[in-house]
Amino acid sequence: MSDLVTFGETMLRLSPPDDERLETTRSFDCRAAGSESNAAVAAERLGAVATWMTKLPDSPLGRRIASELRGYGVDCDVTWTDEDARVGTYYMEHGGKPRGTNVVYDVEDTALSRASADEFDVDAIRDARAFYTTGITPALSDPLRETTANLLGVARKAGTTTALDVNYRSKLWAASTARSVLTKLFPAIDVLVIAERDADRVFDIDGDGPEVAHGIASRFDFETVVITQGARGAVAWHDNVVHDADVYEADTVDPIGGGDAFAGAFLARRLSGDDVPRALEYATATASLKRTIPGDVATVTREEVEGVIGDKIDRVSR
Amino acid sequence: MSDLVTFGETMLRLSPPDDERLETTRSFDCRAAGSESNAAVAAERLGAVATWMTKLPDSPLGRRIASELRGYGVDCDVTWTDEDARVGTYYMEHGGKPRGTNVVYDVEDTALSRASADEFDVDAIRDARAFYTTGITPALSDPLRETTANLLGVARKAGTTTALDVNYRSKLWAASTARSVLTKLFPAIDVLVIAERDADRVFDIDGDGPEVAHGIASRFDFETVVITQGARGAVAWHDNVVHDADVYEADTVDPIGGGDAFAGAFLARRLSGDDVPRALEYATATASLKRTIPGDVATVTREEVEGVIGDKIDRVSR
Amino acid sequence: MSDLVTFGETMLRLSPPDDERLETTRSFDCRAAGSESNAAVAAERLGAVATWMTKLPDSPLGRRIASELRGYGVDCDVTWTDEDARVGTYYMEHGGKPRGTNVVYDVEDTALSRASADEFDVDAIRDARAFYTTGITPALSDPLRETTANLLGVARKAGTTTALDVNYRSKLWAASTARSVLTKLFPAIDVLVIAERDADRVFDIDGDGPEVAHGIASRFDFETVVITQGARGAVAWHDNVVHDADVYEADTVDPIGGGDAFAGAFLARRLSGDDVPRALEYATATASLKRTIPGDVATVTREEVEGVIGDKIDRVSR
Amino acid sequence: MSDLVTFGETMLRLSPPDDERLETTRSFDCRAAGSESNAAVAAERLGAVATWMTKLPDSPLGRRIASELRGYGVDCDVTWTDEDARVGTYYMEHGGKPRGTNVVYDVEDTALSRASADEFDVDAIRDARAFYTTGITPALSDPLRETTANLLGVARKAGTTTALDVNYRSKLWAASTARSVLTKLFPAIDVLVIAERDADRVFDIDGDGPEVAHGIASRFDFETVVITQGARGAVAWHDNVVHDADVYEADTVDPIGGGDAFAGAFLARRLSGDDVPRALEYATATASLKRTIPGDVATVTREEVEGVIGDKIDRVSR
Amino acid sequence: MSDLVTFGETMLRLSPPDDERLETTRSFDCRAAGSESNAAVAAERLGAVATWMTKLPDSPLGRRIASELRGYGVDCDVTWTDEDARVGTYYMEHGGKPRGTNVVYDVEDTALSRASADEFDVDAIRDARAFYTTGITPALSDPLRETTANLLGVARKAGTTTALDVNYRSKLWAASTARSVLTKLFPAIDVLVIAERDADRVFDIDGDGPEVAHGIASRFDFETVVITQGARGAVAWHDNVVHDADVYEADTVDPIGGGDAFAGAFLARRLSGDDVPRALEYATATASLKRTIPGDVATVTREEVEGVIGDKIDRVSR
Amino acid sequence: MSDLVTFGETMLRLSPPDDERLETTRSFDCRAAGSESNAAVAAERLGAVATWMTKLPDSPLGRRIASELRGYGVDCDVTWTDEDARVGTYYMEHGGKPRGTNVVYDVEDTALSRASADEFDVDAIRDARAFYTTGITPALSDPLRETTANLLGVARKAGTTTALDVNYRSKLWAASTARSVLTKLFPAIDVLVIAERDADRVFDIDGDGPEVAHGIASRFDFETVVITQGARGAVAWHDNVVHDADVYEADTVDPIGGGDAFAGAFLARRLSGDDVPRALEYATATASLKRTIPGDVATVTREEVEGVIGDKIDRVSR
Repeated sequence: MSDLVTFGETMLRLSPPDDERLETTRSFDCRAAGSESNAAVAAERLGAVATWMTKLPDSPLGRRIASELRGYGVDCDVTWTDEDARVGTYYMEHGGKPRGTNVVYDVEDTALSRASADEFDVDAIRDARAFYTTGITPALSDPLRETTANLLGVARKAGTTTALDVNYRSKLWAASTARSVLTKLFPAIDVLVIAERDADRVFDIDGDGPEVAHGIASRFDFETVVITQGARGAVAWHDNVVHDADVYEADTVDPIGGGDAFAGAFLARRLSGDDVPRALEYATATASLKRTIPGDVATVTREEVEGVIGDKIDRVSR
Repeated sequence: MSDLVTFGETMLRLSPPDDERLETTRSFDCRAAGSESNAAVAAERLGAVATWMTKLPDSPLGRRIASELRGYGVDCDVTWTDEDARVGTYYMEHGGKPRGTNVVYDVEDTALSRASADEFDVDAIRDARAFYTTGITPALSDPLRETTANLLGVARKAGTTTALDVNYRSKLWAASTARSVLTKLFPAIDVLVIAERDADRVFDIDGDGPEVAHGIASRFDFETVVITQGARGAVAWHDNVVHDADVYEADTVDPIGGGDAFAGAFLARRLSGDDVPRALEYATATASLKRTIPGDVATVTREEVEGVIGDKIDRVSR
Repeated sequence: MSDLVTFGETMLRLSPPDDERLETTRSFDCRAAGSESNAAVAAERLGAVATWMTKLPDSPLGRRIASELRGYGVDCDVTWTDEDARVGTYYMEHGGKPRGTNVVYDVEDTALSRASADEFDVDAIRDARAFYTTGITPALSDPLRETTANLLGVARKAGTTTALDVNYRSKLWAASTARSVLTKLFPAIDVLVIAERDADRVFDIDGDGPEVAHGIASRFDFETVVITQGARGAVAWHDNVVHDADVYEADTVDPIGGGDAFAGAFLARRLSGDDVPRALEYATATASLKRTIPGDVATVTREEVEGVIGDKIDRVSR
Repeated sequence: MSDLVTFGETMLRLSPPDDERLETTRSFDCRAAGSESNAAVAAERLGAVATWMTKLPDSPLGRRIASELRGYGVDCDVTWTDEDARVGTYYMEHGGKPRGTNVVYDVEDTALSRASADEFDVDAIRDARAFYTTGITPALSDPLRETTANLLGVARKAGTTTALDVNYRSKLWAASTARSVLTKLFPAIDVLVIAERDADRVFDIDGDGPEVAHGIASRFDFETVVITQGARGAVAWHDNVVHDADVYEADTVDPIGGGDAFAGAFLARRLSGDDVPRALEYATATASLKRTIPGDVATVTREEVEGVIGDKIDRVSR
Repeated sequence: MSDLVTFGETMLRLSPPDDERLETTRSFDCRAAGSESNAAVAAERLGAVATWMTKLPDSPLGRRIASELRGYGVDCDVTWTDEDARVGTYYMEHGGKPRGTNVVYDVEDTALSRASADEFDVDAIRDARAFYTTGITPALSDPLRETTANLLGVARKAGTTTALDVNYRSKLWAASTARSVLTKLFPAIDVLVIAERDADRVFDIDGDGPEVAHGIASRFDFETVVITQGARGAVAWHDNVVHDADVYEADTVDPIGGGDAFAGAFLARRLSGDDVPRALEYATATASLKRTIPGDVATVTREEVEGVIGDKIDRVSR
Repeated sequence: MSDLVTFGETMLRLSPPDDERLETTRSFDCRAAGSESNAAVAAERLGAVATWMTKLPDSPLGRRIASELRGYGVDCDVTWTDEDARVGTYYMEHGGKPRGTNVVYDVEDTALSRASADEFDVDAIRDARAFYTTGITPALSDPLRETTANLLGVARKAGTTTALDVNYRSKLWAASTARSVLTKLFPAIDVLVIAERDADRVFDIDGDGPEVAHGIASRFDFETVVITQGARGAVAWHDNVVHDADVYEADTVDPIGGGDAFAGAFLARRLSGDDVPRALEYATATASLKRTIPGDVATVTREEVEGVIGDKIDRVSR
């Protein structure tokens, strides 16, 4: 029985080594990458028992994804399907300023994209204390919109806390579609995580962090709203109070996955009984550590995260 | 104006380094790979002016494919399309005996798969001396079956010699489908290349090489039929005479692309005026060199090929 | 509840890339490697639910070992200890003929080397259907000799089938010591696996395979005796009958771990109900596949193993 | 018919990976690198049809250089010569502050160094709209001084716009020699590009950018003078007016080739009809992108450059 | 006859490439690393004839360490012992802020750890002009405490200048133990190098650099005391005068070994006759260059160091 | 004072990784490589004190060559010259059958090529027991022909045994030139090593090994003549008796340097007092081990070589 079940697509992330370009690279580093499995790893690392739920082909590529995640310590509750089904991939080119990081998705018609709710181990969701997914899941296909709604419904009905990170991806769907689909899911959500920028882009709610938090909390009916603000930290609305946390300065080697680490850590610490301000501290510290680690996944320890919070980290520990 | 136009899908080939498994690899070597572009490179290397024709998304991945092939010296006649379209990929795991080499295709819904004949530069086909494709092209999608037929029709009508390598791929289509589709294309083909094994699997024609050659030549109406027999060499039927050629012993580092190198070299030498037995020698020598080279593509020189034929190669040349 | 619990030391294996020498290398490939965890992976792959039991420091290095093995699908039942304890390492230099493969062990005073039986989850052993270790475990330290005996005693008493692979390592202990220690363990063993060469070196039993099998079976009192004979295959004595199996020809890229794959596959298939000759076929096929895979571990599928047995593997499958 | 023909030596650039030292490295990354081919690639990327003209041995090394450049999309107009001739090489060690980047040239007696003007396809120069070379070309050998002068003469006579980047290299020739040789070439030049530092070192013209621009424009008789000022941007004198452009902040992974990207982009945009200030913007943006890309060559797209200009680049685009 | 003999343990340093984590890495970069051999290399590079003295197993790993150091130009005076003895290793994970760099030592029971003074070539120490070790040596084992004292005694008695870098490592011994052991060695030391932080942690002497220098010089009786202050530079007390030197800004790619480079350079320049302020300049410049170089060792040239001092380094030298 | 001084050019050998082609590679492995330094390493490894003598620029590249060789345990007696002088390089592409291994030399005008005898430490030659060079040295330039003759003269006059390996390189000089130049050197040579093939190509002496040995011994006046015969072993003529030795079967990963290892080992064992047949055994065993090691250099131990001779090598030693 897990504390947290996360549900979503995990892809093979193919990224050129160093700062090489997609157009000229001769090799790719390959890692398992998906918002919901990223969050599950972070949660597990911060003390939760976490399960990642998905559907994969029983092919070398599907097994590779589950194998990497199991290695990180997460339980993989996989609906295995025909080996000819697709795994999603995405190509990620990392570049410094002013080039930026560029992502090319190749996620059409994956094994997961056609899955209905009854293909999954819904009892695991019912038995869990929390259920988490992101806006990427309903963005992937029409069937997944329905499936996401159904699984959230299962969780709701069973009294499992539900959490959603909006995670808007402009390369996957239009902001207007996202708004319409997500708004329908919101009534089933207890904890909402959203980037300040997405609040603006998708829901036309702008302002400073606390304003946005209040705005979202008042417009919809969440128990907790967390606003991530990039370099400016994060803000959490809970019980009509807004808490904030500064970001920790990080030498970024990989900008991807920081938000997922944030969400996973926040949920894990809330599940372990921490109050919102404390969970927020863990979340920002975990996210900052993630940025120093290659790949999507925050392979941190709780001790490291607490070292960052307490500023107890030597630059060189020997 | 090219001597040879080849038409088909070129994929990103993703293969784990060394003999690593798909299930456990952390990186992939990446190369452009496609039967028809492979053949174009071999033809160019053996003296033909070769053009590879295809459709690709104007994305970093699409440009990467064209860029690598241009580097090999081939003219790329690309119909560029929307950057969101897919490029095909395939995963290739190389293993020694008894593990073998395993290919996982991911070629659904690529940019090319939906292309109709009028999207291509048909004048280039009309102006060329030969037009070449393989059985992989019609295997990829229903639209491509029609497109292949139409482009072969354009070539036929313009008096361009047409050539087809059957290249049966059991992971792409059933043998019975292949037989039915290809049989309809055969009347438009002048030169057929087919592996002995495919003659048996797809067309139920077995026996030794000359028997198979006669069998195919008598059942259909080709000008030239070339049978490749793996380690046992190759056989060519032309003007009712059968010629054969032994294979050259090779230390194989990459088994993929040998057949394409064979076909490209054979066509190039025929176009340059060599008779069938001479072209067959070039083809087997080029294929054996290919097997010593990582990747799908025969980056050889004509001098090297002739060195193999003449056994003039020192083991160490210094 | 596992079908099989294996118990032993797993090290970081550090091997220079390609055929580089230890004396000159600038980098090492690193993999988790240990006879008993290797066997657990092979068993899991062949259909058993397998648990590997050990003691490790709660350090990045200890976690790395468990993480890699969990990724392969094995349950890790780890007694975690102080992060300052050592993990074992071994350096492995691979060389072709006549250089050979050279191993340098660095396994003194590891976390496991001082562990007593009561530090482990003995209920897992009691609940399992089989318990397995190798002669390497008692070779590592005096405390481990006692611990091994005690854990075998636990298994015996609970009715769990016990299996031991002699796995003699001349760099870890003298043959005379090995003989004396192992002989004391033998009464608690049901299934013995031993290399023909070790039968000679350690127990002075030589002759052809069946002779050695009978010799060992008659001198000690095992239910099953399996003799591995390298390139000449394997022989199994059971119920007073000797069965044999040929080896499958393999293009060896990594000679380490073949015996462990053999043992793990044999046990898994026996546990699944296969008779001895059938289990022996699986074992030799798994071992041959292992030799084509870099690292100690047989990351195979049951389908692949059965493909080897049935000779159904294409050299290139596409 | 090209918009732009560039003429010069392209070398194999051999650079240790990461920040390794030349003195201790065990491997080199290898890329084609030459000021004039770099500029041709940038020009092609920014919309010009560009040809790079040179002389190379018909050896694997010579073919490697042309092959890489063809891959980038540039037409290679190569005078092929005897395979025993040399290609130039340079060793490049990259180091952060205070170590700096160090270049070791090995460019004596290359195939190009002895080439006379009549060995080249002068009609291509006559037919082009612009002809470009740099001060490196006449620095390489006495024959190349004459050849450079003759080819500029051909261009001049044919009405092809001529452009020269001074590109002073203190490791190739003394400042006084450079001054004397280049001064003789200047009457044939329409567009001069020069680093502020070189204006001082070679021509003793210092001051701020506009002063230097006016100084050079008044001392010699150019149509356009462009002064690059490193981190302080660039200045262009044209029609007696001085325009300037700020530099875009860049996370530099490779400092080599920025100036060439600048020159190529400037010429391409001028040829496409942009006025001097607009071309200057493209040039500085292209140069800043180049600094984020490993290797000498600006493998950018026009869209990316325009994104930098418009500051439309997300830090992470997904 | 050497100018400088340094004595201590040199380990294999195993570090994951790029910023990979120990817990997930699949490979390690391997380099010889030890404070005293690091210092010997820096001293040799700055003009001293330097010998590194140690004890190693005559195994591939022991030979690897000596071989790498010989390559750097240092004489290796190795007491070779049984090939089964251990070499020390340490695992080093590099991470940016806030993750930091983490070291895991594995130095128990190495060949050196049990060595007594009479196993070494004490005449080399007597003949040298200076003898150097660090606080790491007595931290490694009880026998080494005695051996260090004895070798310092030999040097003292022979009139060889003695130098010690405190180099406190909290992962090797407690501060209180270090204080007690080192204090007993101090009477035999002429030149003490100590980090400001260690003065505080180990000897409870804090304050600004000059205060610390005076504090240490007054409490103990050294000829010279050098205080390193990280980013704030260094301070040297000599003849009752305090000199200071600023640090040179460095783009750090490897933070390890800077202090050793500092000490080696300082001693070399003092031995060559430079006064304390000049030697301090060399020391800070060498240390800053070291930080730009991967590995523990300052593979610099004297010319480069002087270039840093004179700020004569171009960012790109070509 | 060395047992053996070897004299010659050592280059940077640049070889594509794996079996990649020169024409397409993106990186090169780099190693110091030269017949005479290769032989010095082998001699040192087999028990001789060996010095390699040469001239190099005092540049990072020159220092890199000496540094690598010092690391292998050889004394480097280098005449350092101006940093702008060239080091030789050669590009080596390794390919299996039928492609073969291809070498591209780039050795014009190196620092050594213009050196006269008086630039070298001739006393070291006088003091040594043997002096060795190969036919590559006089092949490199006219000055080196004279220098080689002069240094051989110095050795001869001092009573130092002289040895020469013909090492004919068709890419460096014509057979007729080689014959004429070497024939003039022969009167100063005591020990001649020559490949059977070179005896034929250069001196028109063919037949089986003993015939060739007698033929050369009778035509010229050597004390010892050694004929290497590739896979067929080696033959030595000494005191009018012919001895032969079989080759040891080897899994070749790098075919370069086997002959140099052979010569160095033969000389070392002769200098240590072994008779010709015994020295021949060491030489063939060392050469066979070399073939299993990447790079030009035989980084073997005497124990390994004796293990090969005694066939005492386990395929896996653990």
